[in-house]
Amino acid sequence: MTTIISIFDTTLRDGTQGEGISLSADDKLKIAQKLDTLGVHYIEGGNPGSNSKDIEFFQRVKSLNLSAKITAFGSTRRKNSLAEQDASLLRIVESGVPAATLVGKAWDFHVHTALQTTLEENLAMIYDSFAFLKRNGVEAMYDAEHFFDGYKNNPEYALAALKKAQDAGADWLVLCDTNGGTLPGEITEIVTRVREELSAEIGIHTHNDCELAVANTLAAVQAGARQVQGTINGYGERCGNANLCSIIPNLQLKLGYDCLPENKLRTLTSTARYVSEIANVHMPVGQAYVGNAAFAHKGGIHVSAIMKDSKTYEHIQPELVGNKQRILVSELAGQSNIISKAQELGLDVNANNDKTKQIMDQIKELEHQGYQFEGADASLELLLRDAFGGESKELFKIESFKMLVEKTNGQMLSEAIVKINVDGEQVYTAAEGNGPVNALDNALRKALVQFYPKIEHIHLSDYKVRVIDEKDATAAKVRVLIESTGLDNTWSTVGVSNNVIEASWEALVDSIRYALIGMVKVESRANDHNDRIGLVNH
Amino acid sequence: MTTIISIFDTTLRDGTQGEGISLSADDKLKIAQKLDTLGVHYIEGGNPGSNSKDIEFFQRVKSLNLSAKITAFGSTRRKNSLAEQDASLLRIVESGVPAATLVGKAWDFHVHTALQTTLEENLAMIYDSFAFLKRNGVEAMYDAEHFFDGYKNNPEYALAALKKAQDAGADWLVLCDTNGGTLPGEITEIVTRVREELSAEIGIHTHNDCELAVANTLAAVQAGARQVQGTINGYGERCGNANLCSIIPNLQLKLGYDCLPENKLRTLTSTARYVSEIANVHMPVGQAYVGNAAFAHKGGIHVSAIMKDSKTYEHIQPELVGNKQRILVSELAGQSNIISKAQELGLDVNANNDKTKQIMDQIKELEHQGYQFEGADASLELLLRDAFGGESKELFKIESFKMLVEKTNGQMLSEAIVKINVDGEQVYTAAEGNGPVNALDNALRKALVQFYPKIEHIHLSDYKVRVIDEKDATAAKVRVLIESTGLDNTWSTVGVSNNVIEASWEALVDSIRYALIGMVKVESRANDHNDRIGLVNH
Repeated sequence: MTTIISIFDTTLRDGTQGEGISLSADDKLKIAQKLDTLGVHYIEGGNPGSNSKDIEFFQRVKSLNLSAKITAFGSTRRKNSLAEQDASLLRIVESGVPAATLVGKAWDFHVHTALQTTLEENLAMIYDSFAFLKRNGVEAMYDAEHFFDGYKNNPEYALAALKKAQDAGADWLVLCDTNGGTLPGEITEIVTRVREELSAEIGIHTHNDCELAVANTLAAVQAGARQVQGTINGYGERCGNANLCSIIPNLQLKLGYDCLPENKLRTLTSTARYVSEIANVHMPVGQAYVGNAAFAHKGGIHVSAIMKDSKTYEHIQPELVGNKQRILVSELAGQSNIISKAQELGLDVNANNDKTKQIMDQIKELEHQGYQFEGADASLELLLRDAFGGESKELFKIESFKMLVEKTNGQMLSEAIVKINVDGEQVYTAAEGNGPVNALDNALRKALVQFYPKIEHIHLSDYKVRVIDEKDATAAKVRVLIESTGLDNTWSTVGVSNNVIEASWEALVDSIRYALIGMVKVESRANDHNDRIGLVNH
Repeated sequence: MTTIISIFDTTLRDGTQGEGISLSADDKLKIAQKLDTLGVHYIEGGNPGSNSKDIEFFQRVKSLNLSAKITAFGSTRRKNSLAEQDASLLRIVESGVPAATLVGKAWDFHVHTALQTTLEENLAMIYDSFAFLKRNGVEAMYDAEHFFDGYKNNPEYALAALKKAQDAGADWLVLCDTNGGTLPGEITEIVTRVREELSAEIGIHTHNDCELAVANTLAAVQAGARQVQGTINGYGERCGNANLCSIIPNLQLKLGYDCLPENKLRTLTSTARYVSEIANVHMPVGQAYVGNAAFAHKGGIHVSAIMKDSKTYEHIQPELVGNKQRILVSELAGQSNIISKAQELGLDVNANNDKTKQIMDQIKELEHQGYQFEGADASLELLLRDAFGGESKELFKIESFKMLVEKTNGQMLSEAIVKINVDGEQVYTAAEGNGPVNALDNALRKALVQFYPKIEHIHLSDYKVRVIDEKDATAAKVRVLIESTGLDNTWSTVGVSNNVIEASWEALVDSIRYALIGMVKVESRANDHNDRIGLVNH
């Protein structure tokens, strides 16, 4: 019998306290659906008394019929008032949620300084509020704010706060490290003491201000906590909340607890990436378990060992969390990286082959010039396909391009003109953009959309510029990395030049070439594609 | 007496294994200088036997006369050979470093699978290699690769590997969690056992694959490790190495260990941000201790409590690590910095002055748009001089510029046309360049050199481009930082736009404006400046 740990997701509530994170009601509903598919037990949707967005969420989420319990968030009643007349508590009950979390003070310093009331009144606020929720049939969790700081300052008062909630019938006592300043050893000691003093189930809610939120959560679970509160990708105020994307696999794969329904852990990576897309927050490549580089190997010695046995440099099989191994081709890597990359693409390649040596030399020469393929899988794939693929048909040929940027009377104008050739048919066209790269992108896609209407559905999703050798200043080389997204795929390409426009152009052309692989060419439809051209012309 | 923990920085070696991280020899030297100022004990520079970049680094770093010990990295000797004839070990000794780290196997599985030799031969490789280093007077560290996985699989063999290094005279036995899969409880248990069995000093080297690298490092130190290996911002292969920017304040502020010289902890935030700039890797806003949002408060309740006492929602005083509190709704931070900067320039400024409030608002608005004055002192000085200086004479006025980039038949052409006005005299000129920024620089200086002949002596010495908000791809804003050098001075300027050409132009114009301050204008010398124009025309 494995022990079950309840996963309580607060991405939609505490997660939105993070800088730059703002979710509409629609966004929240999409994320709730995805979290439900992942199989978390509780989804905290927000505060039904605080704003119209959250009120809308609680109304509309009912029709999704999720398996997870939707929970509402609020505070203990106001000081010197009645729970029955507390507008915020009433709205929680009215929202019809099966479960609710109330935050309440557990640190005497905060009672005096922030709440500005007596220690006794705070205890009464806790008791009354939970008694009210329980009378209304709501599963009730007490988020004991600053519990660990409170315990360190005045253990008896912090425990008395928990006791009040327990006496009022609270189902869970959730110990919060609100300021994120507590260390794992303290967590172990304090949770152990709480377990001795109280009988209700214990939860843990940590913040990442010391980069210890995950470790603190594990320490609490190992000391007996049975509910974990956290967010997808660790979003949250200041340094964020505890990251469920690391906690869940640690608990389930490393410590043998039972967190998600069977086979659901495999959806973790796609969940993390989906939430990052909806929240519009860039995901660090190196994020544990679910990051794009979490199982990416760069060092040549590592790569050659990985090919013998992936256990040599991987702590788990990436597929267990829905991620995958990647071999980065870089200056630090050897031939083995290239070969395994080519094999991954299903290309006919072997180590003793002349062609392999030739492409190795070509890649080395390009890297020497400043290309970097570890962040540009698609450009590398194009190189390998050109060398080994057989189907090296030229999808289109660039004849020339021209780019004009002008500023007159404070007005900026960026304009691009391209001349390309598609199977003997010449296309000569121009487009504007809000910058030179945007103008080039618009012009190139405008020239091609008549032959490949699907390129409408792809767009540039990331653009990076790096000056390779800064000593030469404006004469230095720059490397441009472009990420493109569309048609259920994301790919990256690279361009290098001492001219930032040329480098961007090169990466753009690779990006489009990669997109066209496998795409069906249609006959030029000069008469019926004007609408489409309109779409990419701005 | 507090216990000293040696800080071993491997940003320049293991850090560069991270995806997208590539440092030139110049970059490495700049970072080494900054790390030395922070006060770390060891700076691992790279592998002097592996590539020309690292060889250059080890040669040039000597002239910096750093206090930190520069260490070289390598492996134990090859199997079935002599340490004395091992090219890589010889190059470490030849490089003249005072200390070196050799990685060697400690996991029997790896000896068989990756190294493909016998357990005995691996032990001999360890012994011979460390004996060789010690005979050559080098402080020697054994990076016991996969030590924890090895210990879990075959504790006696893992300990035997450490024992061999100790017997050969290794000064430090560094226990590596190479795959990053170990949990804090295991670390505590295993380090405790190692301390019982061995007498040499113990170090710890962890990776962040479970988001536990910081916790694992603390656990090891608490169990007796006295050296910590990690990187700035946690750069490194896959999910990165242990992040020194979190470990150092945790050890020093929370656990009372002695890591950095007095008052150096206050340079932690600027060090982290500097390294992120040089590595051109975006720093997560929520990074613990040093992130821009690490002490940023968004929630209304949090903000009002913070105003009463910052301890309510801050686990430490941000200034201890050189960071600062930010209130996200009404940003008040930074005013004192601006005032002291203006005073430093001898400008007439005082805090209650309307003009001060106005310039503060202007700077806040510019920062909101993406400007960053930390790395652009000259642009900030121009703003302050324009506001307070009195001598706000316009040295020249831009009427328009135009930039053309063209590629035809594989030939690139970059051409710039500028129209400026110097005290009523209009200059309309054009120049080529090997890229658009170079062309603009050439054209602008060509237009001005007849009035200010000394601008011949300045040149751009650094050029950086950073995409500020990568989500919008080609429509995203870019920030350009330009460093200029000449006339015994070096200064930096900034430009921001969603058009890379406009941003570059803005930084260029600021750079020239700054250079002209205090420069004497001569009468236009149309007849005798042709040679000079020739100089900047290419």
